[in-house]
Amino acid sequence: MITTHNGPQPADFTDVRATNLAVVLRFVRENAPCSRADIAASTGLNKATVSSLVADLIDRRLLRETGLTENRVGRPATMLVLDGSPYAAIGVEVNVDYITAVAVDLKGEELLNWRRSFPGSTSSAGQAIAAVAAIARRVVSRMSKEARQVLGLTVAVPGLVDVQGAVRIAPNLGWHDVDLCGDLAKALRDPGFPVMVDNDANLGALAERRFGPHGNVDDLVYITGEVGVGAGVIMDGRLRRGGRGYTGEIGHIQIDPLGPDCRCGRRGCIEATAGIGAVLARTAPDASPADLELEIDEVVQRARGGDREVLDLLAEVGANLGKGLAVVANLVNPEVIVLGGYYVPLAPWLLAPAEEEMFRRAIAPGGGGCRLEVSTLGYGAAALGAAARVLDSVDSGRLPAPA
Amino acid sequence: MITTHNGPQPADFTDVRATNLAVVLRFVRENAPCSRADIAASTGLNKATVSSLVADLIDRRLLRETGLTENRVGRPATMLVLDGSPYAAIGVEVNVDYITAVAVDLKGEELLNWRRSFPGSTSSAGQAIAAVAAIARRVVSRMSKEARQVLGLTVAVPGLVDVQGAVRIAPNLGWHDVDLCGDLAKALRDPGFPVMVDNDANLGALAERRFGPHGNVDDLVYITGEVGVGAGVIMDGRLRRGGRGYTGEIGHIQIDPLGPDCRCGRRGCIEATAGIGAVLARTAPDASPADLELEIDEVVQRARGGDREVLDLLAEVGANLGKGLAVVANLVNPEVIVLGGYYVPLAPWLLAPAEEEMFRRAIAPGGGGCRLEVSTLGYGAAALGAAARVLDSVDSGRLPAPA
Repeated sequence: MITTHNGPQPADFTDVRATNLAVVLRFVRENAPCSRADIAASTGLNKATVSSLVADLIDRRLLRETGLTENRVGRPATMLVLDGSPYAAIGVEVNVDYITAVAVDLKGEELLNWRRSFPGSTSSAGQAIAAVAAIARRVVSRMSKEARQVLGLTVAVPGLVDVQGAVRIAPNLGWHDVDLCGDLAKALRDPGFPVMVDNDANLGALAERRFGPHGNVDDLVYITGEVGVGAGVIMDGRLRRGGRGYTGEIGHIQIDPLGPDCRCGRRGCIEATAGIGAVLARTAPDASPADLELEIDEVVQRARGGDREVLDLLAEVGANLGKGLAVVANLVNPEVIVLGGYYVPLAPWLLAPAEEEMFRRAIAPGGGGCRLEVSTLGYGAAALGAAARVLDSVDSGRLPAPA
Repeated sequence: MITTHNGPQPADFTDVRATNLAVVLRFVRENAPCSRADIAASTGLNKATVSSLVADLIDRRLLRETGLTENRVGRPATMLVLDGSPYAAIGVEVNVDYITAVAVDLKGEELLNWRRSFPGSTSSAGQAIAAVAAIARRVVSRMSKEARQVLGLTVAVPGLVDVQGAVRIAPNLGWHDVDLCGDLAKALRDPGFPVMVDNDANLGALAERRFGPHGNVDDLVYITGEVGVGAGVIMDGRLRRGGRGYTGEIGHIQIDPLGPDCRCGRRGCIEATAGIGAVLARTAPDASPADLELEIDEVVQRARGGDREVLDLLAEVGANLGKGLAVVANLVNPEVIVLGGYYVPLAPWLLAPAEEEMFRRAIAPGGGGCRLEVSTLGYGAAALGAAARVLDSVDSGRLPAPA
């Protein structure tokens, strides 16, 4: 089944052609190689309309003919596939200890993937914006050299991003009311492509659907395992943002009123009891944010070596994580919860206790059918999701102009 | 704006006429009185198609012409309104201490509203089904006398209802794996109209959107305040059911690991710390479920009289409720949380402490914009929502056959 309309339609239907172009583009993305007749048969659009739409998409170099024909009765049909070779979608993630940048083509194939350490927790917002702009400029310049037009850039931020793309609070970066979207567009000198900003967990969830093994899962929650813990909530196949864009803020849900102090000023929050910080507070209390990756690697080595103290700690953090995930399972009943970030290397020790506690606390039998899985996308999930958001906006009708 | 497609479209578009009939029906519901030209202009359907669809809907007695004409330049237009006088949608709620039945016409106007006490907590599932069937038969018979065709019947149950309409667990009714839908259809001797079963909180949320003051709120959570505490979650304008239909199960989210024992075997759950049971455990520990309404009334009288003990208790329960609502605000970021059931009479004392605690614990500034409100629909919300679900299924294209 294809979804030909995935949101409310405008009352006046003036953009019916843009909508139909997007319908055809999505159909070919999911069914290539396919013929014009296949498109007409499956979308209900008539053949003349399909021919005109396909011609337009070929003009825009979003589709191309393969030259191959399908072996069928009657007139041979020319097969269509996605083109998109002249395009790139860029995703950047800024976090407490690193900046990541990826670029993908229209098919979602990775063109580059850069990661560098960045002192996010000790930099000002201005410094962070300058650093994001610097890496973005380098990616754009690389894409220009490859003769690719940039379709858009999304930046993933670990914080509350409102529906306009302003960062209200990014506690672990120390940001308050940063107009990242506007400032970045300025720093890039009005780059001629859309600049978007979104929450890292939201984008991780988009990445799992588009690039991970969960493309067919309509109810999925992605959990970031960075210094912060957040959730991206997909229900009925779409990211759900809520009234203001602040869904999935699970990091400061209280698990234990007598639990350890949290940096937010409260006690026993999910971040303080089940976050990466809860691990490092005991294994490396003086670690600098810049060394997170090294410190987590050290924890992994000690756990592999059978270090009792570390194994007990990970069992405890896993159980606390399960308490938090039970809240998610009870309230939004996902089919899959995907653990990302630093939870990935620690998963061999966290997963079993987390699952056990989640199942114990979920009121629906068998956790309401919820499976707990580990991201296969690695640290790059949010940046990949940022690029996915650019592709999503193309798929929903914001097409590049014809050449 | 009207939503002309509110879900995935079938790939083959064979039911395009049913979809378009529903589009026209919804447009008239929201914009009556209106002309065929208005419909064509707003939906993008061409005028000949609209005329044919309207004729069909008039045949089915879902629309009628008013005889009035709009005062406009050019040829006068005949105005259309909803008819629906020959139809009724029935909603029934079964709960721990009562059964409610309502019937509404196609416009949502109430035709009857019955409430009777019922010993739900001490009855077997078979007895409950017999009682629901008995009240349903009486409503159907009343509708027949009024020459109304029943469009459907939905039963609201305080428990986990899977996507097929089977009740997996209704803890406060003592039900496990009850095929209410099937058993009820049998008890009604295959009544010739669809029988549906849904969770009471889900239906309360639908009722708030269709019959309450929240018709334009796309992100709304309804909280049941019966013996159980559950949530119905509307995001982006539609009820979200999750993977298996078990969203909104907040009653057994743990607020305090050292809190009072809960009937579920855990400790410090929302039901045990912030439910009606938490109030009655202290004011009327021996109250029978059949007397809940009287006991709550007694609590209200004592609070009105300034009884210090009761006022302190309600402040404490209100704060606990706020802790639970903060979880909802953080995870799904609703625009409005509506408190229903027994929370309504207790709201004058619960609301302020609940709101204070919710705002304190929500990570987004100002609770992420979430307002806390009290249902105006009274105890009948779930039954009204059950009838609303029947109307929703008509609106989405399951139309009665032409006469």
